[in-house]
Amino acid sequence: MSYQSVAIFGLGSMGYGIASSLVKAGHKSYGFDVNEVAVDRFVSEGGVSAGVAFVGPDVDTVIVVVLNAEQTESVLFGENGVVQYMKRGSCVLACATVPPDFARQMENRCADHGVHYLDAPISGGSVKAGLGQLTVMASGSADAFLTARPVLDVMAETVFELGDEAGSGSAMKAVNQLLAGVHIATMAEALTFGMTQGVTPEKFVEVITKCAGSSWMLENRAPHIINGDYNPYSALDIWPKDLGIVLDIAKSAKFSAPITAAALQQFLAASGSGLGAQDDAAVAKVYARNAGLTLPGDQ
Amino acid sequence: MSYQSVAIFGLGSMGYGIASSLVKAGHKSYGFDVNEVAVDRFVSEGGVSAGVAFVGPDVDTVIVVVLNAEQTESVLFGENGVVQYMKRGSCVLACATVPPDFARQMENRCADHGVHYLDAPISGGSVKAGLGQLTVMASGSADAFLTARPVLDVMAETVFELGDEAGSGSAMKAVNQLLAGVHIATMAEALTFGMTQGVTPEKFVEVITKCAGSSWMLENRAPHIINGDYNPYSALDIWPKDLGIVLDIAKSAKFSAPITAAALQQFLAASGSGLGAQDDAAVAKVYARNAGLTLPGDQ
Repeated sequence: MSYQSVAIFGLGSMGYGIASSLVKAGHKSYGFDVNEVAVDRFVSEGGVSAGVAFVGPDVDTVIVVVLNAEQTESVLFGENGVVQYMKRGSCVLACATVPPDFARQMENRCADHGVHYLDAPISGGSVKAGLGQLTVMASGSADAFLTARPVLDVMAETVFELGDEAGSGSAMKAVNQLLAGVHIATMAEALTFGMTQGVTPEKFVEVITKCAGSSWMLENRAPHIINGDYNPYSALDIWPKDLGIVLDIAKSAKFSAPITAAALQQFLAASGSGLGAQDDAAVAKVYARNAGLTLPGDQ
Repeated sequence: MSYQSVAIFGLGSMGYGIASSLVKAGHKSYGFDVNEVAVDRFVSEGGVSAGVAFVGPDVDTVIVVVLNAEQTESVLFGENGVVQYMKRGSCVLACATVPPDFARQMENRCADHGVHYLDAPISGGSVKAGLGQLTVMASGSADAFLTARPVLDVMAETVFELGDEAGSGSAMKAVNQLLAGVHIATMAEALTFGMTQGVTPEKFVEVITKCAGSSWMLENRAPHIINGDYNPYSALDIWPKDLGIVLDIAKSAKFSAPITAAALQQFLAASGSGLGAQDDAAVAKVYARNAGLTLPGDQ
């Protein structure tokens, strides 16, 4: 076990879980976020807060756990971006869901500074982030993997090594998000459709999870609807963002993705009607409202 | 174990499997099909062929394994329909995917003849049919279950008992078909989308089956694409039919099902371009053609 100095940019639910895991594992960990409350909490748990110009030269690995490509680029190369301060041979580990082309650009721009870049989108949710049990879909050079390995060992239960250059990790993440997003919305469509035919949500889960219609997301999210529990284990607003990224990539490739497009519309309707901060299972509320149904826990 | 006289209407891939299982289990089994080759083959394996007017009074259970509601009604109540010949207390076991309202109508019309009706759509495919390992989503009276039980014991690994009147079984089947059909088309959409980004079908299956984007159908059907094997384990033309039934039910309930509708269009495009008799994984060929991709096994 070799100890590193690590900087985590983005202390939202996923980033905070990763940062906490690193502190617990004994790595010197700097935390950055525009939300000062999150930074203060991180410091109280053993994290460090300091300026980018000071931190950059000290760290072996910079983890970027922000919302999207724009924020990733801003952290790395924006005003006071961190890459300009990083030492040669250190590594950026980029976790946001981004287009594969963007990941390749970042890899090249980091290389100009002698900095490795691991294209490393993550999957698993905030609970697994805090437990160091994420799945990482990673691609990059052997040096990038070597430098980031102690950090990957702490944050991930499974690391898929998907190739020796950036882009392949983000491509697989986009594929997974396409499926996961469509499966959540389809679960909601099927569960509420069943209600119109007298199938209760409880019976739906009991039977369908044992049938060919099941999916990982159905098994994971349908119980939230039964329990009327929309605390955001994974916030609905992730899906307008991630399915939007998928469709942007698809459009660039002239790839027609009509099912993804239909699912995106349902998440947009949910977000537009004020459900964006709830658990993503709340997409079922759009279907329920459209069909005059009352979900468990609703009045 | 009590032995019955059973008639099976419909010796297609599912019905033939059920009929064979019944013969092997020792039940006296009459087979009916417009396809005389199938009937001859069934007789050579120990089945019996005879006229409806002769068979009707002899049987305890009539199994109807035809394509849809129209064919079911024709077998039961059409010209020379079997119900008029059946003895009081015998049972119809109806396996086609049909609207719940239709199942309730058939239950009532059978009751007028003193005949029980078990709403018993099946799931599992022809291989499991031949092994007696189907899943049955059944609803009906206690007497219907009691009469059909020896047959259910032979044909099914799992029998979900979903209520004491017809309709609930068909409702759950429609819910399962919605999910299963959407998941197949979404698997095809995601697999081919991945190909545009350099994700090979092999890598897709290797990674996604271990991630949140997985589904029962993805695990079952994606390997067909990798192998370029479109032998119809389950024919594509089932989906324009079954998703059409789902959307007919949804329309009657004024239920908006945009993802199901999008998936149906992809299966229609596949069927319209001549792929209807292939395995349903062939819906991927629509995506591949639209995006200029070459699937495994294609030239």
